Amino acid sequence: MLVRLDRESDVPLYQQIRTKLREMILSGLLPPGSRLPPSRELARQLGVNRTTVVNAYRALWSEGLVEGRAGGGTVIARPQDGRSRSVPQPVPLLWEELFTERVPPPGHWTDQAMPKVEGDVIRFDWGSPPPDLFPLETMREVATQVLDQGPDPLRYGPAEGVPVLRELIAQRLRLAGMDIAPSQVLILTGSEQGIYMVAQALLRPGDGVVVEAPTYPGALRTFRSLGAQLHPVPLDKEGMRLDVLEGVLAYQRPKLIYTVPTFQNPTGITMSLDRRRGLLELAWRYRVPILEDDPYSDLRYEGQHIPLIQALDRRNYVIYLSTFSKWLFPGLRVGWMVAPRGVASRLVGIKRSLDLCTSPLSQFIVFELIRRGVDHLDRILRIYRARRDALLSALDRHCRGFMEWGRPQGGFFVWCTLREGIQMEALQEEALRAGVAFISGKPFFLEGFDGERHLRLNFPRLPEGRIEEGIQRLALALRQAASRPEPKVEKAGELGTPPVV
Amino acid sequence: MLVRLDRESDVPLYQQIRTKLREMILSGLLPPGSRLPPSRELARQLGVNRTTVVNAYRALWSEGLVEGRAGGGTVIARPQDGRSRSVPQPVPLLWEELFTERVPPPGHWTDQAMPKVEGDVIRFDWGSPPPDLFPLETMREVATQVLDQGPDPLRYGPAEGVPVLRELIAQRLRLAGMDIAPSQVLILTGSEQGIYMVAQALLRPGDGVVVEAPTYPGALRTFRSLGAQLHPVPLDKEGMRLDVLEGVLAYQRPKLIYTVPTFQNPTGITMSLDRRRGLLELAWRYRVPILEDDPYSDLRYEGQHIPLIQALDRRNYVIYLSTFSKWLFPGLRVGWMVAPRGVASRLVGIKRSLDLCTSPLSQFIVFELIRRGVDHLDRILRIYRARRDALLSALDRHCRGFMEWGRPQGGFFVWCTLREGIQMEALQEEALRAGVAFISGKPFFLEGFDGERHLRLNFPRLPEGRIEEGIQRLALALRQAASRPEPKVEKAGELGTPPVV
Repeated sequence: MLVRLDRESDVPLYQQIRTKLREMILSGLLPPGSRLPPSRELARQLGVNRTTVVNAYRALWSEGLVEGRAGGGTVIARPQDGRSRSVPQPVPLLWEELFTERVPPPGHWTDQAMPKVEGDVIRFDWGSPPPDLFPLETMREVATQVLDQGPDPLRYGPAEGVPVLRELIAQRLRLAGMDIAPSQVLILTGSEQGIYMVAQALLRPGDGVVVEAPTYPGALRTFRSLGAQLHPVPLDKEGMRLDVLEGVLAYQRPKLIYTVPTFQNPTGITMSLDRRRGLLELAWRYRVPILEDDPYSDLRYEGQHIPLIQALDRRNYVIYLSTFSKWLFPGLRVGWMVAPRGVASRLVGIKRSLDLCTSPLSQFIVFELIRRGVDHLDRILRIYRARRDALLSALDRHCRGFMEWGRPQGGFFVWCTLREGIQMEALQEEALRAGVAFISGKPFFLEGFDGERHLRLNFPRLPEGRIEEGIQRLALALRQAASRPEPKVEKAGELGTPPVV
Repeated sequence: MLVRLDRESDVPLYQQIRTKLREMILSGLLPPGSRLPPSRELARQLGVNRTTVVNAYRALWSEGLVEGRAGGGTVIARPQDGRSRSVPQPVPLLWEELFTERVPPPGHWTDQAMPKVEGDVIRFDWGSPPPDLFPLETMREVATQVLDQGPDPLRYGPAEGVPVLRELIAQRLRLAGMDIAPSQVLILTGSEQGIYMVAQALLRPGDGVVVEAPTYPGALRTFRSLGAQLHPVPLDKEGMRLDVLEGVLAYQRPKLIYTVPTFQNPTGITMSLDRRRGLLELAWRYRVPILEDDPYSDLRYEGQHIPLIQALDRRNYVIYLSTFSKWLFPGLRVGWMVAPRGVASRLVGIKRSLDLCTSPLSQFIVFELIRRGVDHLDRILRIYRARRDALLSALDRHCRGFMEWGRPQGGFFVWCTLREGIQMEALQEEALRAGVAFISGKPFFLEGFDGERHLRLNFPRLPEGRIEEGIQRLALALRQAASRPEPKVEKAGELGTPPVV
């Protein structure tokens, strides 16, 4: 039996010896209970230092393959389970027992927020853009054009993304105030993938993540499934409350701050410029990176552009995510990340494991659509704005006194807060009866009870007439729910004046 | 200051109290050093049991927000870092320090296997199908047809995949002997994603995975980045060596067996029927699930179809992965998984975090291509087979005596083993000089030194004439490398007869 050593290799000799012996043990050639040669003897045979052999034996020992026996040298260990036992009857595998904590609980977050609706229901519960506004004709032209260029869109592409698209995105973002190079742009299979990649790169189980309360439930699911501890920070009209945030940073030492600062999902709130600066200062002080998730900022209907947090940062603290899914098509599954210099090239290793690369066909199509796309965005903005106005005006005329709501300057959502005494469960029942659907606030909060006083209305999906009709139906449901007797008395207690230090 | 309790909510009262107090502490309303009211008093004020308040205080204590002080009640703790200190000068973030082990090392596995080539080089180093054979005309027709059907391909799709495609795949697999329902099929953004999803579902850091030696480096990268311990099992002509595998199962208790049983990458070896049965029996006995990665089995050029491991399993031990990337286009990024009943619906939660859904546009295109695609597959098989034959015949004529190789019955690769005395480094230099490129075996092995005696040749990418010319160049390089003096003496030592038990 020859042990072949390759003295040219950069694999250490002890490792080579270990590998060969390991295979002989596992294959049964060196059966349990038999002895390895004394290290001195094997060293002489192989022409190596005795230490080399001792190190190989030690490595085998740490794997549980051999054991030292007093006065008996190094002996092949017995396996942990009876290799020699007779074959038992095979039993089905209990997969549920095998799953790690990384398998999220069954079901989707929308299950708890959206009732199953059928028939004549006016639906404010979508989170996606209206398919009837997709520029199908342009899309067909673009697809043909892209496929006429040859096979490149159908090959594997670079994991970082197709260069022309990375450059185009970098150009667009420079117009929005970002000082970035194309090498900082990574193309993603939807911006959801970016949340996952950043979480995977930065979080060990038990690590803390700051999230807005309320926030996007998909992010909560991803952070939770990777074992993160979530630290909710409430919002006011200017965005994340920095007083609470500072407490969290100081007490909890989180590893990441996740924010959707512009036209937030679900509240529609946009973080003010001052608040953005304050957030960055806190991040700098406590050395915590920020994940700026920005799917909506292209969709501004009024007011001044507010600089992106990434553009205000001068210390490389921000990873930025965005997508074209909200004004082009979600079905192409193309989003992107902007990471600080040197960071993008590291995160791409995770991207490779997730899907090798984003579909080059989708990337070339998005590239062409964006180049032609300015007109389409203008059209979309006009239509969405009119729908937002219709919704706000209908709410004003029909729902006053039953709930309060904000006026989003862009994005998809109007967020409403029910007045005292209207129960969410009752409202959902009445709404279904009246033929109108919305999303309850529950899944947007870590602790669902805060959500039961809120609902989210999506406006881009419905033409103005349907919006008016839908809000009339919602008003009817609110009136019915308000007139129901409260099932039990809700009690508020006095906590007393905060104590003096 | 009111603490509002919602007695209707399914969130426990203690949790509601805790959340409110938490926010008051973090916002500074209850500053460090100040006291919470005695639990008895707060309980009275809120009209709850004293235990409820005690539990809330205890939860705050476990978060580090309050501390008990002897005789002093419950006191707000000081934060771990000086909140009151002056703002230091912001410093750049050291991302490299923040990364977890889950960020793979920089670079791609091909970096260490493929020299950078330029000029007139005949390339056997690809791992992807030939773009000049892509059915572009059909593709254009199909894309137009799919986009004429309306906006569905451009919307978000179900995370599980588009139903028509899941059904079509289930139908095809039933013809290959699988007894499965469409609900067991999950559409993936390439089959690479399936390796990641299964690893994420089953492996905690330190858990063991059986891999073939050699095997696909992308799988090694994914398992490694998730912290798995890898247990290599060598192959012989019939596939994984079961004697070694049984030793690994018994000694190491791995959580997963990963295998590419058909036209394996890189060896081209196909696991025999007996071996497949034996593998399943071992998996059943040690209750270890199998991940059967099968990108190539559609590409059989000779010999009988051997049943898939999934089709031989009657105990739900196998998750099966495949793709159309190898005979259609990789650029669509569509693969799929077949999981045991009840398992698919759990794994889809991970899929949602990765990318919400695979591009419905790609899915509808693949659906149409497959329906029309039988002729294309036949054409591809004829061409690939002729190229394999050309390669085997050229090797026979030019490379005998310098290396040995296998005869793959299908797939992409011929795997060669260098004879003694030819150094990989020398061969790579000579090959580049002669104008021919291949992949060295190194990245396919956990411990690179085994790989330095091997090379992988991909044949589908080159027409027969180029194959003949390329192998002539390789033969020249082999001859040159063989004539180089060995830089140092390679030494083999005698281990001696295995000891008697």
